[in-house]
Amino acid sequence: MGESTRAPTAAIIVIGDEVLSGKVEELNARFLVRELRKLGVAVRRVEIIPDVPEEIASCVRAASATYDLVFTAGGIGPTHDDVTIASIAAAFSVPVVRDAEVAATIRAVSGERFFERDLRMADVPAGAELVYGDGATRSRWPVVAFRNVYVLPGVPTILQRKFTMIRDRFAAPPFFSRAIYSREGEGAIAHVLDKAAADFPSVAIGSYPHVDAMDHKVLITLDGRDEAVVSRACAQVAAGLGPAVVRVE
Amino acid sequence: MGESTRAPTAAIIVIGDEVLSGKVEELNARFLVRELRKLGVAVRRVEIIPDVPEEIASCVRAASATYDLVFTAGGIGPTHDDVTIASIAAAFSVPVVRDAEVAATIRAVSGERFFERDLRMADVPAGAELVYGDGATRSRWPVVAFRNVYVLPGVPTILQRKFTMIRDRFAAPPFFSRAIYSREGEGAIAHVLDKAAADFPSVAIGSYPHVDAMDHKVLITLDGRDEAVVSRACAQVAAGLGPAVVRVE
Repeated sequence: MGESTRAPTAAIIVIGDEVLSGKVEELNARFLVRELRKLGVAVRRVEIIPDVPEEIASCVRAASATYDLVFTAGGIGPTHDDVTIASIAAAFSVPVVRDAEVAATIRAVSGERFFERDLRMADVPAGAELVYGDGATRSRWPVVAFRNVYVLPGVPTILQRKFTMIRDRFAAPPFFSRAIYSREGEGAIAHVLDKAAADFPSVAIGSYPHVDAMDHKVLITLDGRDEAVVSRACAQVAAGLGPAVVRVE
Repeated sequence: MGESTRAPTAAIIVIGDEVLSGKVEELNARFLVRELRKLGVAVRRVEIIPDVPEEIASCVRAASATYDLVFTAGGIGPTHDDVTIASIAAAFSVPVVRDAEVAATIRAVSGERFFERDLRMADVPAGAELVYGDGATRSRWPVVAFRNVYVLPGVPTILQRKFTMIRDRFAAPPFFSRAIYSREGEGAIAHVLDKAAADFPSVAIGSYPHVDAMDHKVLITLDGRDEAVVSRACAQVAAGLGPAVVRVE
């Protein structure tokens, strides 16, 4: 069914009491979900967890073992609530070490405004890979990667810039998507969707009631990696719905 | 330290491939985080997971055992991807049963537009509590609760209406919050925050760099249930920061 190349899977772990308390709007998972989707990576889980080292460690360890890629966002910096690096090191039972190159850069950039605590930004789990980017994305501030875990900061503009430094690593075959708008509700069309879901196991079929829409009641989505298979599934659903189809996209 | 009444804790489990694929914006966790916060409930975890029964079941079971309250959003309806009820029943090893009152309401409301599949909306885990609301919030469509798990729909406007039917159950002592804006960066102020975090264990102290702000570099937040303790912690941090304080809120 065109699924010979399995999509890489990913988990996103957002670390931050500020998101759980509703003080800041969650933008990082939203950004990563969209970017990874464009790259053909299937995000299978998003977790938003507090700044608690044990929770970060257990969450990262489980995600690293379950998914191909893990992205953490937040908890990177010199203050008491920046515990991500130490927690990831603990998750994999390695010590935290200070990277000499990053430490030298911090000293060079800080000049007279240098604070000893800023050097904590040079701490990495022992054995981490430091990704500096290439060409236009090259930066003197690396992204820290440990095994399949990429450690990103919590400030959205910085996270987005850092992601450009690593994104080329994750390119996978793209998804193909179709959409059908139905003027009948879910109860009336469920049997058509059931059959299509059974006939096309490689196509993810979603059904979303749009209670506020004027011209349709349900949006049906079809996604897969094989464009021809997605098209056949789409045609079957559209035929099954008959006059209930408002439009196909 | 005024923490004699521990805050109730909560987890939010968002069920839906459509969120993980970036097709729909996540609004339900955001809404619930804010509403629960206003009620004094501490949200300790948000998970966004796919429409996979085993994942829903294990996630709900773990959250139900760990947190005081669990809210699920999504996967309620008559179509093939609506697997939340069956998954919650599986999580607690109880069968799914059809509630006669809800089934009768579905038949009565549907009239000629009745579809057998719509009756799936009357299915509940055996032993579930059906919450119909009181007074102004009373509805003929109940919220299904099983033990400490509240089952909410994925359509944001409906979820928000349903939450009003149950919100009075969760009222707890409120949080008190203060904020300090610092013109010094995190490296310069970290020692002040470390000391306050140690001196006031009942106060959650957060530190957030605002890279795009004109008049400050870091927002420091202080939250706790005892207003006097939060004020003392705030005063200590402000004194420690001295001329770095832009303003206190």
